[in-house]
Amino acid sequence: MRTKRTSLGTLLHHVHVSGPLSRAALAERMGVNRSTILALTAELAAAGLVREEQPTGTTGAGRPSLVVRPESERFWVLAFDVAVDRLVAARVGLGGPILARIETDRPRAGVDLDLVVGRLAALGRELVDAAPPDSTCAGVGASYCGMIRPGDGMVRYGPELGWVDQAFGTELAKALDIGHPVAVGNEAHLGALAEHQRGAGTGVADLIYLHGDVGVGGGILVGGRLLGGDSGYGCEVGHMLVNPFDGRPCLCGSRGCLEAETGEYALLDAAGRGDGPVGAAAVRAVVTDALAGDPAASRAVAEVGDWLGIGVANLINLFNPGAVIFGGMLRDVYRAAAPQVAARIAQHAMPVSRERADLRLSAFADDTTLIGAAELGFAGLLADPSGDRGPL
Amino acid sequence: MRTKRTSLGTLLHHVHVSGPLSRAALAERMGVNRSTILALTAELAAAGLVREEQPTGTTGAGRPSLVVRPESERFWVLAFDVAVDRLVAARVGLGGPILARIETDRPRAGVDLDLVVGRLAALGRELVDAAPPDSTCAGVGASYCGMIRPGDGMVRYGPELGWVDQAFGTELAKALDIGHPVAVGNEAHLGALAEHQRGAGTGVADLIYLHGDVGVGGGILVGGRLLGGDSGYGCEVGHMLVNPFDGRPCLCGSRGCLEAETGEYALLDAAGRGDGPVGAAAVRAVVTDALAGDPAASRAVAEVGDWLGIGVANLINLFNPGAVIFGGMLRDVYRAAAPQVAARIAQHAMPVSRERADLRLSAFADDTTLIGAAELGFAGLLADPSGDRGPL
Repeated sequence: MRTKRTSLGTLLHHVHVSGPLSRAALAERMGVNRSTILALTAELAAAGLVREEQPTGTTGAGRPSLVVRPESERFWVLAFDVAVDRLVAARVGLGGPILARIETDRPRAGVDLDLVVGRLAALGRELVDAAPPDSTCAGVGASYCGMIRPGDGMVRYGPELGWVDQAFGTELAKALDIGHPVAVGNEAHLGALAEHQRGAGTGVADLIYLHGDVGVGGGILVGGRLLGGDSGYGCEVGHMLVNPFDGRPCLCGSRGCLEAETGEYALLDAAGRGDGPVGAAAVRAVVTDALAGDPAASRAVAEVGDWLGIGVANLINLFNPGAVIFGGMLRDVYRAAAPQVAARIAQHAMPVSRERADLRLSAFADDTTLIGAAELGFAGLLADPSGDRGPL
Repeated sequence: MRTKRTSLGTLLHHVHVSGPLSRAALAERMGVNRSTILALTAELAAAGLVREEQPTGTTGAGRPSLVVRPESERFWVLAFDVAVDRLVAARVGLGGPILARIETDRPRAGVDLDLVVGRLAALGRELVDAAPPDSTCAGVGASYCGMIRPGDGMVRYGPELGWVDQAFGTELAKALDIGHPVAVGNEAHLGALAEHQRGAGTGVADLIYLHGDVGVGGGILVGGRLLGGDSGYGCEVGHMLVNPFDGRPCLCGSRGCLEAETGEYALLDAAGRGDGPVGAAAVRAVVTDALAGDPAASRAVAEVGDWLGIGVANLINLFNPGAVIFGGMLRDVYRAAAPQVAARIAQHAMPVSRERADLRLSAFADDTTLIGAAELGFAGLLADPSGDRGPL
């Protein structure tokens, strides 16, 4: 029974991650025969999780093999993203498509747990109410810009919102009240998993995902697994001390942390725009101006890029990664600061450590962490489609 | 057959790591019944790998349960350690005791592959010739202060000896000519494994071992496994840039690396002893003088300890370790520089990241990397006592 559950989950996982696959392809990937695939597919189809259909775009003689496609409209999760400047909620279908998405600005002050939970719950209910009546919510995942206790979604530390030990996951589940727990993860951890599963890091078992927001977060895969450390709080890349002498103050109370030197405020200050608008649009404006040759913007990008390059070189020495992926605001910054980053890597990363480290941009623009949250929401269904959360 | 081989290896591994164990303890650890233990033990005893005997120091009524003890005198490995200031060769018995050990100074200049291999092979043959005639060499392991290619023991980069892409493992096996390949590992990687297996890090799945020599190396376990990275070159802690402004030159060609700021030469220079003797004894003299209140030595230790603390704080943020273990020369330095390290951790490591990070001294004084090399030598026998390398 356990074996069959596992096989159902494995098949569903394949079509969830890869999209429509022929029975032959599934048989090959799973190392089982086609009659087993037929039986598993029939069971998943009866539960409404997949359907079989003619492949599109096939040519040639003979009857084309049917493909198995996830029922993205019928099974979906709620995904939430609590970033510093915005709250996002989405319905994400099995297979990964974002079916509906709502984004609101997050007020920069007075953001206690009740306020954030209340707003997210309202967004979530709006999405649930608008979902097709014959569709099913399979889970809920949330991404948060802070250090999250594994298991219960407690925010142990989220300096951007001033949170310490706030029961975010538990409270959001209570406020949503749709019969699902809320699985919570650190935004950059989830970003790394999303890039590895279906983004710029597929097939790379040792990768580093760097996420820029007001802070800078890291998600690091070692041998295909997220580096959790002793208690789940690994990957705090943003608080690596890079500037020990006259570093900028950091929200954590220290100075000279990587995020203090490369985050949003560092870039805007360096560009002489510290008193102007903040947020992703302001960051992009600096990058755009730098790429167009504006001297102050170019200097700002070069300065931030230099610190970023030190951080990346250190990470390459420590992790010997196959890929380093820039996401969130750092995706924009890297587009303009690639020369500085490359120079620091050449100067400080061991040649042997860097020889296979490929630098890449996130595949998902602003939605990496949201997609990671959705994957968290799908985890229960994919682990066991016949379990409590599944329809079988 | 495979299951039985695995069980034989598992039992042998238990007594190798833990020393004499009763049949009852083995049955509990392996989750099998006592008659299985009896059969496995009989087979290993017939091959001469273990013997059963009365436990020492037992009291009380009833017949005491026999204990299973590894035959340390009969099965041993050759272990080599190529450090910057010395070459060490040892015979290490099953169960871990160092049965014989030869150490020589390493000439500081002109150390090409042939010279080092020739000297090590001579030391190794001396040990083999002096071994009891009815004893067996089960393998050969070597620790090297550089970046080692997994599989063939190629030294990709060893700046202290000026080596790039030198076929160390292959050549040493050829020169030894005793029918065993030579398994080679980076010294700090092996130190981490040794501490985890039988030293200061037993039971800690996420640990950081820092090894000081002329350079500074790191061995990091993530979830109980050595962090190899994409190609086996992870953990280059010593080349983390900590001083980006006026850092000391590093052997790697960069400046301000952790090892440039905390290695042997940094300490001796800071103590005003840069023109005097070098090596472990010179380092210990500075530490001893600092602990006795000598002002110049105290300042030197404080300065080096401050940089070391920055490095450790960064590693705690990145890895959320359960333990950080100081070995080699850093074991001495940390004894005197603990206040500086603690201060930097308090200042820069996230409270959540550091709450379970325990700072410890290596359990093996100068032999951590040698013991790690021996474990590498035993790996084949322990994986399969009935295989090519085993007597069964």
